[in-house]
Amino acid sequence: MRALVYSGSLDLDTDYPVPEPNHNESLLRVLKAGICNTDIEIVKGYMDFQGILGHEFVALVENGPLKGKRVAGEINLNCQRCSTCLGGAPTQCPHRTTLGISQKDGAIADYVTLPDHLLHVLPDSLSDDQAVFIEPLAAAFQALVITHIKPTHRVVLIGTGKLGILVAQVVALTGCSFAAISRHQHQRDILSKWGIDTALPGEVEARGADIVMDCTGTADGFADALNLVRPRGIIHLKSTYHGLPEADLTRVVVDEIAVVSSRCGPFDAAIRALQNGLVDVEPLVEAHFSLDEALSAFDTAGQRGMLKIILDIA
Amino acid sequence: MRALVYSGSLDLDTDYPVPEPNHNESLLRVLKAGICNTDIEIVKGYMDFQGILGHEFVALVENGPLKGKRVAGEINLNCQRCSTCLGGAPTQCPHRTTLGISQKDGAIADYVTLPDHLLHVLPDSLSDDQAVFIEPLAAAFQALVITHIKPTHRVVLIGTGKLGILVAQVVALTGCSFAAISRHQHQRDILSKWGIDTALPGEVEARGADIVMDCTGTADGFADALNLVRPRGIIHLKSTYHGLPEADLTRVVVDEIAVVSSRCGPFDAAIRALQNGLVDVEPLVEAHFSLDEALSAFDTAGQRGMLKIILDIA
Repeated sequence: MRALVYSGSLDLDTDYPVPEPNHNESLLRVLKAGICNTDIEIVKGYMDFQGILGHEFVALVENGPLKGKRVAGEINLNCQRCSTCLGGAPTQCPHRTTLGISQKDGAIADYVTLPDHLLHVLPDSLSDDQAVFIEPLAAAFQALVITHIKPTHRVVLIGTGKLGILVAQVVALTGCSFAAISRHQHQRDILSKWGIDTALPGEVEARGADIVMDCTGTADGFADALNLVRPRGIIHLKSTYHGLPEADLTRVVVDEIAVVSSRCGPFDAAIRALQNGLVDVEPLVEAHFSLDEALSAFDTAGQRGMLKIILDIA
Repeated sequence: MRALVYSGSLDLDTDYPVPEPNHNESLLRVLKAGICNTDIEIVKGYMDFQGILGHEFVALVENGPLKGKRVAGEINLNCQRCSTCLGGAPTQCPHRTTLGISQKDGAIADYVTLPDHLLHVLPDSLSDDQAVFIEPLAAAFQALVITHIKPTHRVVLIGTGKLGILVAQVVALTGCSFAAISRHQHQRDILSKWGIDTALPGEVEARGADIVMDCTGTADGFADALNLVRPRGIIHLKSTYHGLPEADLTRVVVDEIAVVSSRCGPFDAAIRALQNGLVDVEPLVEAHFSLDEALSAFDTAGQRGMLKIILDIA
């Protein structure tokens, strides 16, 4: 089969073996897959991952009890037996592998396997393009699982990239006073279309936010978040970082700031929000590429300010 | 008057002008003062402070409605009028000065002034030595104001220095499963005397703590805290940092760790705890020096593993 493989270099392999599903796993024929910033970071060495990239996808089940169903899939392959899994935090299972990120081949390929309990059968009303956004939208909703954003809060978001712009939509649902800071006119236009206030860096009151959503994944972003959050406020980290950023932890202590974070989230909430029209993802699609064009697609996805690139696979 | 002054170098000035109290302020004759790690950091350049050092003290009031009373004093000179003060966070007042730390002469001197509303009249049952610990003990209690440590939590503390060892006592009051990690035999002996479990680095299960109290104030300490805390656990920062430490914020995000912090705290709680014998501070006193010996006292206080040095002033 075809597969986009990272093994020190990024290559489109046209003769990769089709994976064999284990017991309680499905073989999935991938219809479409999205490119995430994590994929771009992996190619720079993040997670020391080698294998097939991709963890945002929609697929058809080829075998087993779900045969013929169209599904999205959660990405943390947890053990379902340890105290972390049984304690209600399966995405933190210490024995997990992670689809296209850690010790498990991903979904930018003709086929992928996943345990059945991680699959979500999709309603017909969702398009394939929408379905590709379920995984990152679930991660955006995880911000609300972790942090109680109240209708009375003043919230500022920085980093309006692929994930940040989804987080912005989810935060706006809370009814809080909200502004997304962005220099990118295209992203500002999309946010404005959704009725979300935008601001340029420097236009927002320093130390005025109850909560800052930091979706930048950069040390500069964390420094900006510190300048925006009020004493005793919350900085919510929604991106991983390349390397070890320098962080002004003294400021965190002196201002008694809480730094919290969130990662993978509830697929059901993401599916409901897309079904109900609470979240709009179509404006985020910048381009479609075929799997044969995956290397070009990857180059395009890495351009500054670029939102979602979708690979049409089947 | 005599005063320990930092102005690029540390000097004992013997002819410093006695401060004049403003309206609603008291002139205080200092009886004793403690040396804190913050004082030691200031001499290394922290906060760019210049002036009289010292913010842990017990004193007699020389004038006004509290004349003749023995008092301890809170250190954040807040405005009492802004939304932060009125909103219940006076120690975070953006207009504040801070005793011996920021734009306000401190208490290692014969006299100091403070607004009356920051003074706490002390019960006779507290010794002067105990009273010197009220300020840092209040800061230790602030950890419990910010973080709900439950009797069911597994808590680990790192950094058993001047402040950390007080935090350890306060954490132990919660009934949680608790171990303080320390290499210093003297500190381990004191902790054991209080019935607090101690451990050497490496003896505590990695990623097993619900909450890690980081009292180290070092980048290495934060890295250790990350290795000790479980996914979705809490790292509570209880020290400021010199410079900008490198921090593995990716680990914070991937493990969905909450990083919280606390600074100055409730004097009333500290006074009650000392009165009721809930907290024992006498074993922490390493030596007394006269104010005339303040430079030697400061050198001693800066030695590795040293706990509290008290200056006898009046």
